[in-house]
Amino acid sequence: MIFIMGVSGCGKSTIGKLLSQDLNIPFFDGDDFHSKSNIKKMANSQPLVDKDRQGWLKTLNKLAKRQLTKSSCVIVCSALKQKYRDILSLDIESKTKWVHLSGSFDQIYNRINIRPNHFMPSELLKSQFDILEISKEALQIDISLTPENIIETIKNELVNKSEFGLFGLGVMGKSLCRNFANMGFKISMFNRHVDGIEENIAKDFKSKYLELSEASAFDNIPAFVKSLQEPRKIMLMVNAGKTIDYVIEDLLPHLSEGDILIDGGNSNYKRTKERVDYLKTKHIHFIGIGVSGGEEGALKGPSIMPSGNIEAYKKVQRFLETISAKDKNSLPCCTYVGPEGSGHFIKMVHNGIEYVEMQLLAEVFTILETLGQNPNDVANTFETWKETASSYLLDITTTICRKKEGEDWLVKKILDKAGNKGTGNWATITSAELGVPSTLIASALFSRYISFYKEERLLLNKNFKKVNTLELKIAKNEVLKTYQFARIINHYQGFKLIVEASDKFNWNLNLSEIARIWTNGCIIRSSLMENLVEIFKSTTNILTNSQIIDLLNQYKPAAKKVVSQCVLNDIVTPALAEAIQFLNGITTPYTSANIIQAQRDYFGAHTYQRIDDDSAENHHTNWI
Amino acid sequence: MIFIMGVSGCGKSTIGKLLSQDLNIPFFDGDDFHSKSNIKKMANSQPLVDKDRQGWLKTLNKLAKRQLTKSSCVIVCSALKQKYRDILSLDIESKTKWVHLSGSFDQIYNRINIRPNHFMPSELLKSQFDILEISKEALQIDISLTPENIIETIKNELVNKSEFGLFGLGVMGKSLCRNFANMGFKISMFNRHVDGIEENIAKDFKSKYLELSEASAFDNIPAFVKSLQEPRKIMLMVNAGKTIDYVIEDLLPHLSEGDILIDGGNSNYKRTKERVDYLKTKHIHFIGIGVSGGEEGALKGPSIMPSGNIEAYKKVQRFLETISAKDKNSLPCCTYVGPEGSGHFIKMVHNGIEYVEMQLLAEVFTILETLGQNPNDVANTFETWKETASSYLLDITTTICRKKEGEDWLVKKILDKAGNKGTGNWATITSAELGVPSTLIASALFSRYISFYKEERLLLNKNFKKVNTLELKIAKNEVLKTYQFARIINHYQGFKLIVEASDKFNWNLNLSEIARIWTNGCIIRSSLMENLVEIFKSTTNILTNSQIIDLLNQYKPAAKKVVSQCVLNDIVTPALAEAIQFLNGITTPYTSANIIQAQRDYFGAHTYQRIDDDSAENHHTNWI
Repeated sequence: MIFIMGVSGCGKSTIGKLLSQDLNIPFFDGDDFHSKSNIKKMANSQPLVDKDRQGWLKTLNKLAKRQLTKSSCVIVCSALKQKYRDILSLDIESKTKWVHLSGSFDQIYNRINIRPNHFMPSELLKSQFDILEISKEALQIDISLTPENIIETIKNELVNKSEFGLFGLGVMGKSLCRNFANMGFKISMFNRHVDGIEENIAKDFKSKYLELSEASAFDNIPAFVKSLQEPRKIMLMVNAGKTIDYVIEDLLPHLSEGDILIDGGNSNYKRTKERVDYLKTKHIHFIGIGVSGGEEGALKGPSIMPSGNIEAYKKVQRFLETISAKDKNSLPCCTYVGPEGSGHFIKMVHNGIEYVEMQLLAEVFTILETLGQNPNDVANTFETWKETASSYLLDITTTICRKKEGEDWLVKKILDKAGNKGTGNWATITSAELGVPSTLIASALFSRYISFYKEERLLLNKNFKKVNTLELKIAKNEVLKTYQFARIINHYQGFKLIVEASDKFNWNLNLSEIARIWTNGCIIRSSLMENLVEIFKSTTNILTNSQIIDLLNQYKPAAKKVVSQCVLNDIVTPALAEAIQFLNGITTPYTSANIIQAQRDYFGAHTYQRIDDDSAENHHTNWI
Repeated sequence: MIFIMGVSGCGKSTIGKLLSQDLNIPFFDGDDFHSKSNIKKMANSQPLVDKDRQGWLKTLNKLAKRQLTKSSCVIVCSALKQKYRDILSLDIESKTKWVHLSGSFDQIYNRINIRPNHFMPSELLKSQFDILEISKEALQIDISLTPENIIETIKNELVNKSEFGLFGLGVMGKSLCRNFANMGFKISMFNRHVDGIEENIAKDFKSKYLELSEASAFDNIPAFVKSLQEPRKIMLMVNAGKTIDYVIEDLLPHLSEGDILIDGGNSNYKRTKERVDYLKTKHIHFIGIGVSGGEEGALKGPSIMPSGNIEAYKKVQRFLETISAKDKNSLPCCTYVGPEGSGHFIKMVHNGIEYVEMQLLAEVFTILETLGQNPNDVANTFETWKETASSYLLDITTTICRKKEGEDWLVKKILDKAGNKGTGNWATITSAELGVPSTLIASALFSRYISFYKEERLLLNKNFKKVNTLELKIAKNEVLKTYQFARIINHYQGFKLIVEASDKFNWNLNLSEIARIWTNGCIIRSSLMENLVEIFKSTTNILTNSQIIDLLNQYKPAAKKVVSQCVLNDIVTPALAEAIQFLNGITTPYTSANIIQAQRDYFGAHTYQRIDDDSAENHHTNWI
């Protein structure tokens, strides 16, 4: 959608028509859309006031929107004030390009008055210059150029330049590039050059995929930045941590005011807030977005969790919504989450929930294996669970279990040392910092840590033989119930962490919307998540929802049986076991914390409160 | 131990004798202790060289040490070079005071040569001035003062001024003051003045206790600092966190080069390192020390864990060792831990272990209560445990359980919301940061957090009724074994965290010494800790020690039974339950982490290693 603006006589119509012919899209002259009363006024030489223009501008905005549903068009309209332009581009901000044909007063005055049959009093032109507010977003073009040059410049800047830049071509960056390109966006792609290690990454990548034929590939920062339309939109897909700061410093000298940097990595939410604040001082927008879906999601449509400045977000909204997954109602799995680093915060919690869901499947695998199932049997069992416990992670684990390598199950060839890349770690740290008992995330994290002590485990195994003589008295269906029980607790804890952060940081997060964008594209999508979208419309605590209460009460006897049997048989199920402990803890009216308070008062005079004293006064006892 | 130094003729002997009479302590003239060969040399007018002085200085050092075992003395000795003084004060640095009688060359030359029968060639005196190195630590006194004035000044500066300052008179600060005073130290005590809230805290405190009659009380920082002998030694007993930094800034303008600040609060070990570095730029020493023992320990002898600059530590060693608890061999429960914030680090771990020990007792209380015991019965049970499971925390919990308030058990009147002051929190965060699975500390921390959600617990309790119809099939002795089992795992995890930090930060910590200073004075002192002192002499991993292996294998069947019964009966025992999970995890040769690695490779192309490929190469599979 191209709007050509400028004062009367700047050549809007001429350029507009030429451009429309060149690009093969329709041309509209804004002046043709005035109301009858406006036309009458102008015929009587009465000047239009802003109120008169209101309806007219809205008409043009509707025209633009209608055209966009088909393809595109060129509209010319003086649009001298910002507020006029705001109306013209309402709801289509990110799809609108502005071209301003600019010249000096004398230049334009002379140009008008040498045309035959045209005359414009100098006062009238002067009044237009007086109210003209230069648009920062518009492409400024000097009218002394020839029309051919002007058309060339517009095409070069607005049509040939890329709409969106991607910085960093790792697994996720590459998949996102292909996604953007598949969706018809013109993109620029950058990957650094490191002699002998990273060479021609972007160019080689471009040459591999047909959909990237229109994309531009760079390993030079100034050229990459120059290839982007202003305000530039650059999504960073580099390793979280210090690298982000180095990249920001590398880019900064080449950026212009109003450009937008988007951090699509798993950055720590505290750092994101700091970067937003820092870049504000440089007049650059910074948007932190969580992206989930792994390699495949990034390619076919990830779940996207953007946060930061809402106005800046609007400028990239179209791009992110287009490449995102869609929920069951075809709405994008991308929603503005909230201010500061809230997008990265909920991505961190997403990954915490993911850690637990993965750990639960690993524990369940162990139980089923102990019950005598081989990996293919486990996969068959998982197939039967899909009806009630459907999830992406269950699906892929089923596929994983079936994978063979010759006569062997591939999964049994994999070294049992689980990696972690920071977010599960941060989720545990954050819950400790915020005073929220995210016991399952911690359990899943620590299970990975334990797995890492492979050499110690092998050494110690010799000293501690396990009892496995008892027959496991567990039915497969009881394992399913135990799994489902723990998954509900996991989701309760994850959203609890979000609720507490939202309260503490005044983010005003919408849990139902968060659950909704997690129903597709992301790693933790599941039928349970679909249910939570509805449940969170009426409560922020799923343990008060009757459906959830019924499920937990129904699953719990099986969970208790399975966990106690596992304890007796030395089967390692820390997360399943903790799920029961947690529900019991959070539903206990009077816990044993009284003992701890008494101890603290005894040795440290920390004082305590009393159950029979509502004043919350602190008491101290001389215990001896 | 007062050394009076200066060039020949400055008046050392005169002043030394007067001072010895005034203070009623012996006087020694260094020159009387020369060897025969030295005396011969001097008689032959041969100048002594440094090699000649070596033995003589050592003799004087021995003399000083011997005198210190009785009381004190004055020794005069020119001691012109720092290296002479280093020998004189070897091993008694912190007990030695230096007085330098100083005057100009002319002043001293004239003074010598007006004495009858004395003559000193000007070259000889000049050579003394040439080699004189002014001591920063010595009290400089102008010899133009009258002898009476000089004695007055020395007494004022060295005898009347306080040896040690304590800043902040909270529960711990007050107890430490009384401890220092009881041990015969002359201290200055400071507490801020806050209108209407904290007024005359130090003065009122002083007036309450006889042992503080010699102590000086202040609410004014310059006067407090001025009251201390240089180099000043000030122990900060204020709230950890930003307060420490504010206090440092308040003190800085009044301090002199070489003064020593000691942070005795529960500061974060990372901050301590930063403060050490910052204060180095100001030429002030900063020592972070962990102090454990609560109110009573601080008064009667706490466990003390100092770290930082070893040279600075030596200057305060005498004070800290004297006020500390003593182990069973009468050695101080105070040892130089290591560099940087290692003292605060191990204090943090100490508190993490403490959190777990407290939580285990709370869980055990719940089990015994469910078995039908009232608090007094529980106390009786605990009494029988002391033989095998003796610990300070078991002792005080026994006392707590017996405490009555009229007809009621006081402990049952205490609100079940447990507080926490940061260190358990930090221990959990630190273990997440360092990749160490401190599952029990996390469990104890999260149990406190759950206790804090009192209102939610009351609300949710209505939705989730617990099954408690089963009779608990547990014997008291099985509960003891479960408790002991979990305590060993707790200590394994705590020391594991120390081992990993020591490796990561190159602290070179001595686990046996750490266990030793935790055998008395501190909250986690116990018979188990006594055993660990010995065990850590031969291993850093207690799970490789045969005694520990036997105990765990012996306790485990009971632990499994108790925990599984608790699960079936909805009794909340997260830490006891996790102890079993952890031992099973850390002794499992092949965990289920292979499933997690397969999942990560499936959705994120994170790759995995193989059990049949020792090259540690990363593999990736196209799983579909």
